[in-house]
Amino acid sequence: MNERSVKELYYADYLQLDRLLNAQAPESRRHGPEAHDEMLFIITHQAYEIWFKQILHELKSVLGAFAVPPLDEHGMGIIVARLERIIAIQKVLNLQIDVLETITPLDFLDFRDYLIPASGFQSVQFREIELRLGLGVLIPQPVTGRLRSEDVAYLADVTGEPSLFEQVDAWLARMPFLKFEDYDFWESYRRAVAAMLAKDRRSILENPLFSDAERNAQLIELDNTRRKFDYLLDPAGFEQLKAQGMFHLRQTSVLSALFIQLYRDEPILHLPFRMLSHLMDIDELFTAWRSRHALMAQRMLGSKIGTGGSSGHDYLRETVDKKRIFRDLFNLSTFLIPRSSLPALPRRLKQSLNFHFTGEQKLDDH
Amino acid sequence: MNERSVKELYYADYLQLDRLLNAQAPESRRHGPEAHDEMLFIITHQAYEIWFKQILHELKSVLGAFAVPPLDEHGMGIIVARLERIIAIQKVLNLQIDVLETITPLDFLDFRDYLIPASGFQSVQFREIELRLGLGVLIPQPVTGRLRSEDVAYLADVTGEPSLFEQVDAWLARMPFLKFEDYDFWESYRRAVAAMLAKDRRSILENPLFSDAERNAQLIELDNTRRKFDYLLDPAGFEQLKAQGMFHLRQTSVLSALFIQLYRDEPILHLPFRMLSHLMDIDELFTAWRSRHALMAQRMLGSKIGTGGSSGHDYLRETVDKKRIFRDLFNLSTFLIPRSSLPALPRRLKQSLNFHFTGEQKLDDH
Amino acid sequence: MNERSVKELYYADYLQLDRLLNAQAPESRRHGPEAHDEMLFIITHQAYEIWFKQILHELKSVLGAFAVPPLDEHGMGIIVARLERIIAIQKVLNLQIDVLETITPLDFLDFRDYLIPASGFQSVQFREIELRLGLGVLIPQPVTGRLRSEDVAYLADVTGEPSLFEQVDAWLARMPFLKFEDYDFWESYRRAVAAMLAKDRRSILENPLFSDAERNAQLIELDNTRRKFDYLLDPAGFEQLKAQGMFHLRQTSVLSALFIQLYRDEPILHLPFRMLSHLMDIDELFTAWRSRHALMAQRMLGSKIGTGGSSGHDYLRETVDKKRIFRDLFNLSTFLIPRSSLPALPRRLKQSLNFHFTGEQKLDDH
Amino acid sequence: MNERSVKELYYADYLQLDRLLNAQAPESRRHGPEAHDEMLFIITHQAYEIWFKQILHELKSVLGAFAVPPLDEHGMGIIVARLERIIAIQKVLNLQIDVLETITPLDFLDFRDYLIPASGFQSVQFREIELRLGLGVLIPQPVTGRLRSEDVAYLADVTGEPSLFEQVDAWLARMPFLKFEDYDFWESYRRAVAAMLAKDRRSILENPLFSDAERNAQLIELDNTRRKFDYLLDPAGFEQLKAQGMFHLRQTSVLSALFIQLYRDEPILHLPFRMLSHLMDIDELFTAWRSRHALMAQRMLGSKIGTGGSSGHDYLRETVDKKRIFRDLFNLSTFLIPRSSLPALPRRLKQSLNFHFTGEQKLDDH
Repeated sequence: MNERSVKELYYADYLQLDRLLNAQAPESRRHGPEAHDEMLFIITHQAYEIWFKQILHELKSVLGAFAVPPLDEHGMGIIVARLERIIAIQKVLNLQIDVLETITPLDFLDFRDYLIPASGFQSVQFREIELRLGLGVLIPQPVTGRLRSEDVAYLADVTGEPSLFEQVDAWLARMPFLKFEDYDFWESYRRAVAAMLAKDRRSILENPLFSDAERNAQLIELDNTRRKFDYLLDPAGFEQLKAQGMFHLRQTSVLSALFIQLYRDEPILHLPFRMLSHLMDIDELFTAWRSRHALMAQRMLGSKIGTGGSSGHDYLRETVDKKRIFRDLFNLSTFLIPRSSLPALPRRLKQSLNFHFTGEQKLDDH
Repeated sequence: MNERSVKELYYADYLQLDRLLNAQAPESRRHGPEAHDEMLFIITHQAYEIWFKQILHELKSVLGAFAVPPLDEHGMGIIVARLERIIAIQKVLNLQIDVLETITPLDFLDFRDYLIPASGFQSVQFREIELRLGLGVLIPQPVTGRLRSEDVAYLADVTGEPSLFEQVDAWLARMPFLKFEDYDFWESYRRAVAAMLAKDRRSILENPLFSDAERNAQLIELDNTRRKFDYLLDPAGFEQLKAQGMFHLRQTSVLSALFIQLYRDEPILHLPFRMLSHLMDIDELFTAWRSRHALMAQRMLGSKIGTGGSSGHDYLRETVDKKRIFRDLFNLSTFLIPRSSLPALPRRLKQSLNFHFTGEQKLDDH
Repeated sequence: MNERSVKELYYADYLQLDRLLNAQAPESRRHGPEAHDEMLFIITHQAYEIWFKQILHELKSVLGAFAVPPLDEHGMGIIVARLERIIAIQKVLNLQIDVLETITPLDFLDFRDYLIPASGFQSVQFREIELRLGLGVLIPQPVTGRLRSEDVAYLADVTGEPSLFEQVDAWLARMPFLKFEDYDFWESYRRAVAAMLAKDRRSILENPLFSDAERNAQLIELDNTRRKFDYLLDPAGFEQLKAQGMFHLRQTSVLSALFIQLYRDEPILHLPFRMLSHLMDIDELFTAWRSRHALMAQRMLGSKIGTGGSSGHDYLRETVDKKRIFRDLFNLSTFLIPRSSLPALPRRLKQSLNFHFTGEQKLDDH
Repeated sequence: MNERSVKELYYADYLQLDRLLNAQAPESRRHGPEAHDEMLFIITHQAYEIWFKQILHELKSVLGAFAVPPLDEHGMGIIVARLERIIAIQKVLNLQIDVLETITPLDFLDFRDYLIPASGFQSVQFREIELRLGLGVLIPQPVTGRLRSEDVAYLADVTGEPSLFEQVDAWLARMPFLKFEDYDFWESYRRAVAAMLAKDRRSILENPLFSDAERNAQLIELDNTRRKFDYLLDPAGFEQLKAQGMFHLRQTSVLSALFIQLYRDEPILHLPFRMLSHLMDIDELFTAWRSRHALMAQRMLGSKIGTGGSSGHDYLRETVDKKRIFRDLFNLSTFLIPRSSLPALPRRLKQSLNFHFTGEQKLDDH
């Protein structure tokens, strides 16, 4: 008989509520009467931290699933479900800002000085999330925020481990379909693009509503578009797009991601398509969080220095857009072409991609 | 050259803003000075109605996809995406109640009397949504709310068409897997349940913390559970569960849905599992909408009669729980068994269910 | 020099992250490999509990503000701000259900058995919130959920303390304005109601669209309405309304609340009106939480017994509507009369209620 | 007998559903089979437009209330309630982006070309909202987006009318309290600031944890802060802050807003404080809307040109921060000082600001 069957589990023990609910010690208490709102400040940040722990729990399991190729549909299903959970948590994080904003700037001043030089920049877990997503790959992460040496060391270790950005890059680069038997998809794509651009050109030339100036502007724009398509498909050109900051993944990865977007109606690409969408969702939600956070900092502090000595609002605002990890996937849409222009896949490739689920008899003939 | 290329599309024309933005005529204007808040009342209800139109657009396309069997994965993917869109819209509908609640009860009285006997019960589109989901199959829908004869006729026609509930029922009943070659899944399931219940019985008997009364109560409960499992698998017993209101789908459909829940880790069951989850989400969100709506009615009117002559809050509240269409799917969880007790599927069935996506070479040997 | 200036405050110490982030011990780990989703289950419940602590922090400060009469506008302003904060937190609590629902029923089964007999009914903080709001005044609170004796004792103590319901009742009963010098407001109100009902009667009698049956039904309804108004203003009649469950506050409190609703445009009644609205918001949000929680329990467990031995979904659903504390305020709307019928307040009373803020010169002549 | 009593109001007529629900004409239908998702595109934009109409309805009534001074507490109460309603609507607008995002980039391509050159930049109502809030005062509004001449003319007219920014500026500038009898508040404030900065200076000098470099950096920062305070109170210095883009309101208005923030616990300042907070909320929510909109544009289009010929994502993103109207109020927090340093108001001024609501007897002695 195991221990559990003789000692009943109690809700408060299971959740360790004695630790959890005794872990709020307002600093203001040590300097005089407690500032009423400091409790909210502490608890909101603690809520952030335990959700960060959960995000890391999911993120690490996602990274783990990527780390053991081949990644089959079962594994992809788990990855998708866990990314969805991260998204659900991010929505909670964003709503928590509404709670934090019930502290007015004047109420914040009642305890702000006691917190110096502690600062949200010292959240090791948030930095770990950023690193595991891949921020360190895109932007070198300076050690700001007066971190303790053990925290610096920990984050350095994390930096050395493969991030989601890298795993996705590797997985996309590994994907088949770029060439299939004697069929070269990208050759068909190139022809489809050429046809599409030729049609666009004709409709610009024939549009009677355009002034000459407008027509020329449109033609120049069309040439730019053509050049981008050329760059996309050409290894040297692709380096140009990378240099312009449009892409950060490998060329083969970008092409695979594009293929998934274009043929996501094929059953086998459902889950990969969903995964890429979720990566963009996660990016969007962290962007929204950072940007609301920057506004809130300004609302609380104006142009005062943050408690950690940072320049507060300006710093936060400026970095919002730079910190997007999966920007490449957003930029991909530049290269989508309408379904009507999409080259048909050869039947045999299509069969490989399809999996009919149409009734009992079908199962037998597999 | 077609018409479009000679006449430029203008935003306001495309959206028909002249009609849309001139379709608000507060009744209070006709009886004296306009009640400021009546505009919000009108516009919120109009926003509901155009979203209802969109929900119907999606719902009809989902019904259309079910109507043309065999339903392949491609079709299932579309169904899932459109159900997800309905869910996104429902969240907007629910948030709109926050807007409507900015009308205070006293402000509502400024124009309420002018609306008599018009009423939200006259929303033909909302009734159509309920019917297309399947409410008419579960509860006969009385023609309340003083509908015009053409509206009554329209809804009668809709009642005659197959609803989502019926389509899902038919699709589940058609599903294979209940028997596969010489393998009888439900026989394995029955054995797994018996083993699980025997284990539960032992742990009740051996638990030293139970008083005799507690132990007996637990054993009685265990017998109830066993009986439910017996009923589930036996056609006559299943009729008992239907009579108790636990199920409304056919037995074979319930069993298929249970199978999907149990083996939803199999790739081929991903989309079906997601679809069933979304049906529950839709149910939950309409339930939340109805229940907030009932509270709002009480807050606005107290126990006054609604403008349409209905008993208002009480009526709304009482019907909230009855109107859930896919309650069966919630009740299914009664019959889930832990993964550890789950019978392994025979390799050949598993293969049929799986589809490995692990690299180029794999594609070739299909 | 104080201690702080020699030892820098560190983010992780301030938030006691070592305790907080080490307080998650999945039970499944002790019985085999950890069930991945148990971490989410723990963390979501911990997030609930720390927010409950914050709600109690605010609720106690609100109760404290009520406890020291006279309650001036400053105090009322604080009460309103803290109720608004509770509302902001409740919205987070409700959104957290979306996160919890990412655990599927089958995944829940991976660890559910290890939690028996622990249960959410053992959340002492949530029960404390219910008691402090006033649930114990409305419904005797049975000690269910196998609470520890110290928890039972603690909750018994809380039951003995004045609840928000009682404090609001006492504050409303204390309010002035029911009689003012030689002016009897309720006499004017009674006359206004009589005139309004007479007008309604005429329009029923004269409406040519009514059949005789409809006309009679409307007249009977009108008599019911008249009777309710009579009961409201008559002490013996009011006891009838209490017996019917329409009201639970004292008659004088209900009348004060009605006065606030009717004259909430008077500046002095802004904050009291806002406070009453927030009490209804809090009721609505807890109702929404309970009702989503009931649905989620059904979705997770079907008709299985909850881990704490409760009847789960059915119990939860049935109690949702009974647990509304400030139902009286919703029912008040029954007795609102249109602004156009509202008796004018005597100038001197109006002056007392008003406070013009129209410029420097005005300040001087106060 | 009026018309209404002989002809019953019908829900569909009241809401003009025949117009409303027939105002969706997908362009794709005219070029081949309807693109399923175009309906959603139309309906979401229509939902935006009818909500814009409602926002304008509220905004104009708020502007009207400001236009008839003196603005008493009653008027301020209405303004606050209507700003709160705008906020509730903005939350719906923001959630609608989730619905729009269910259109995938590839699905969008199915009808995108048919929309050229129509574009959201042609939303006259949204531009009107921006102008009425005050955007035209802050940034000259170029006529982009190929507007029709009547729309250009209409917006020119709107530009000529006083905006919310200007009305708030005028109202703040008119506020009393800056000088009261022989009391000069700003003199006391100046002394309080000096004392606060002196204390900060001492704690920097005495902190043993600072390196010399850190100490110097802190002292320089302190000097910057002192200079900002000097500039704030000095008319010539204030021009510097305006030139730096910190402020756009008049100096007297900024000082009044600061006074409201500092003494918002005084009952008479409750509503003004709430109004200023709501202006910031509105700013934040439009900022969030613009920034999500920019992300969505990128996700839909990549770096393609928008249908209206705009540079799409980049344009949208860059303007997000510039378009904040009430940025001054956020920057105000720079000049808050802790309650403990706040100069006490003279008793007579305080009395003017206070209005005790403590019982019947108090009313009599007014």
